[in-house]
Amino acid sequence: MSRLADLPLRPELAGQEPYGAPQLDVPVRLNVNENPYPAPAAMRTELGAAIAEEAAGLNRYPDREAADLRADLAAYLGHGLTAANVWVANGSNEVMTQLLQAFGGPGRSLLTFPPTYSMYPEYARNTHTAMLHVPRRDDFSIDPDAAVAEIAERRPDVVLIASPNNPTGTATPSELIEAVLAAAPGLVIIDEAYAEFARPGTRSALELLPGHPRLVVSRTMSKAFGFAGGRLGYLAADPAVVDACRIVRLPYHLSALSQRAARVALRHSAELLGQVAALRAERDGLADWLTRAGLRVAESDANFVLFGTFTDRHAVWQGLLDRGVLVRETGPAGWLRVSAGTPQEMAAFRDALLEVARELDLPITDPRPSAEEAPR
Amino acid sequence: MSRLADLPLRPELAGQEPYGAPQLDVPVRLNVNENPYPAPAAMRTELGAAIAEEAAGLNRYPDREAADLRADLAAYLGHGLTAANVWVANGSNEVMTQLLQAFGGPGRSLLTFPPTYSMYPEYARNTHTAMLHVPRRDDFSIDPDAAVAEIAERRPDVVLIASPNNPTGTATPSELIEAVLAAAPGLVIIDEAYAEFARPGTRSALELLPGHPRLVVSRTMSKAFGFAGGRLGYLAADPAVVDACRIVRLPYHLSALSQRAARVALRHSAELLGQVAALRAERDGLADWLTRAGLRVAESDANFVLFGTFTDRHAVWQGLLDRGVLVRETGPAGWLRVSAGTPQEMAAFRDALLEVARELDLPITDPRPSAEEAPR
Repeated sequence: MSRLADLPLRPELAGQEPYGAPQLDVPVRLNVNENPYPAPAAMRTELGAAIAEEAAGLNRYPDREAADLRADLAAYLGHGLTAANVWVANGSNEVMTQLLQAFGGPGRSLLTFPPTYSMYPEYARNTHTAMLHVPRRDDFSIDPDAAVAEIAERRPDVVLIASPNNPTGTATPSELIEAVLAAAPGLVIIDEAYAEFARPGTRSALELLPGHPRLVVSRTMSKAFGFAGGRLGYLAADPAVVDACRIVRLPYHLSALSQRAARVALRHSAELLGQVAALRAERDGLADWLTRAGLRVAESDANFVLFGTFTDRHAVWQGLLDRGVLVRETGPAGWLRVSAGTPQEMAAFRDALLEVARELDLPITDPRPSAEEAPR
Repeated sequence: MSRLADLPLRPELAGQEPYGAPQLDVPVRLNVNENPYPAPAAMRTELGAAIAEEAAGLNRYPDREAADLRADLAAYLGHGLTAANVWVANGSNEVMTQLLQAFGGPGRSLLTFPPTYSMYPEYARNTHTAMLHVPRRDDFSIDPDAAVAEIAERRPDVVLIASPNNPTGTATPSELIEAVLAAAPGLVIIDEAYAEFARPGTRSALELLPGHPRLVVSRTMSKAFGFAGGRLGYLAADPAVVDACRIVRLPYHLSALSQRAARVALRHSAELLGQVAALRAERDGLADWLTRAGLRVAESDANFVLFGTFTDRHAVWQGLLDRGVLVRETGPAGWLRVSAGTPQEMAAFRDALLEVARELDLPITDPRPSAEEAPR
């Protein structure tokens, strides 16, 4: 066996580690914002039957255009969208990569608003796109004046805003997106991976698509649809943006299995989105409990909550893990991120956090149950 | 709707069309080297059950390392390989892209030997890797002296040889690969997408892996395993090459569905490889018939045959299509490529070609059945 250092790897990759949160087998996994609810039994049965049927044609290449899936996703999104407005790939990661291959790349730049999703620098690295940053304010919102000023000065080819933002949960108001669209010379991508978890009154950037051919709204089935294992990301945009993706995509990028399985999941949207409502409630209860326990909590429109701050967040993370609860050590110094889980998982998290607080002598107090919260 | 020309697409992509052979719904599809045999019934049933079971965990992200599938593929390949030697992605397209992201890219170069696989320029384009070429000889073999001289002079970062080559079917001898390995300063990738169809005595580059840490052998399940719809490409190499791919791969690139389905197919290798033997026989019969009909035929170790030459190959292609037989208009001027199909598909192809020859007044004669060929 050779060492990687002995191979002619690109110099900028030397010493880098593969990305990824630890995949640990613990009882309570609240670290990667997965939907805790398994697919309903009816969907599992239907999926097995659909794939057995699909298997008869697996010797043939899949539909390169994924026409049926794109039509189904357009119908799910509404807003008058059709298949021509939708593009699909193996997770948002691949959607974003294709967008940067088409509109970013060498000599071009990508503007993001940290703290934000930790994959964005990897998209830029893989496509040789330069990164620009406008840091968020202390409440994790984007300063509209700072955003517009930076866009005017640096002229980024692509602006990328996660809304709701990961890892902070912060939604970006439509007014700010409109201001960015007016200022930006290039593509404006709104990463709405967590859109379905937004609180009432939070508007989707899908509403802004008419009249904005440089606006792209990215979505995923990983979260709301409980389909993280199925890897299905998609975008909605002007059909010309879809055409650009079709140029850079390598043919047959999305398997017949993925296309068919995603269509089965979409047929169960009503049931799956019922779970989303439950998770929104858990998220709100979690944020409320953490606040009443004396912690700082970032307002969240996603299926997770960023909380803190801790002088030694790693000790808290480790203490929780020792009790079988895995959260994510991410975001600004001192903060931790916890995903909304089942009521049982939330109870386990609260109990573990109180134990860790006692062990580490942290100023966290067990709040009495609020009026909405059932006694534990 | 906007026009693509109105969007800030990268200038080198302007005017490009999405890649791909026409996906036409015709009775006899012999254009993209698919395996004509559907998955066996037992495999289809097993696949449905496996996916129904997998569906229970689809709310969780898949194994980022695809450890079980890589172990199964290593066992299939043999040659003392283990999971650490194997990497997997959504088709060879993604495997090759990751290799070029790690070892090619801006300021680096890729040497190929045309006529060869039409996707290679797209891999280079998407990764901003410069392309170098050493044309094949008239019999579609690689000239070892020309290859070594070009490598010595241009010092390509990656050398990529398809063996058996697409669209010509030509296998490259191990001696030439060893000479290239000795001369090349960087990675040497042997694309063995069609390896299972090679004639007896044709050696796989897998044999050369020990002692050659810069050698990569790329494979796919699309052809021999009849798994084109499942999109499963893989490579075998030194574990350090795998580590390089793990740096540039975006996390969770391969869905839980793909991983599980590929493992089911691998459990049916014995049955599926039996179909490969049948296809090798069809390929040999096809090449023999075309030769006896008076055509030029490239010697093929793959599941297709390149034949010609025609003054107006498009007219022949169209004539075949008009009779429900889709072949591929690709490769050097005047040649056409036809995939090995079922005996029925081969008969339909022969009948259609004879009709087209009569129509276009081509010098093709219906050869009498050879000793091995059953009367039609």
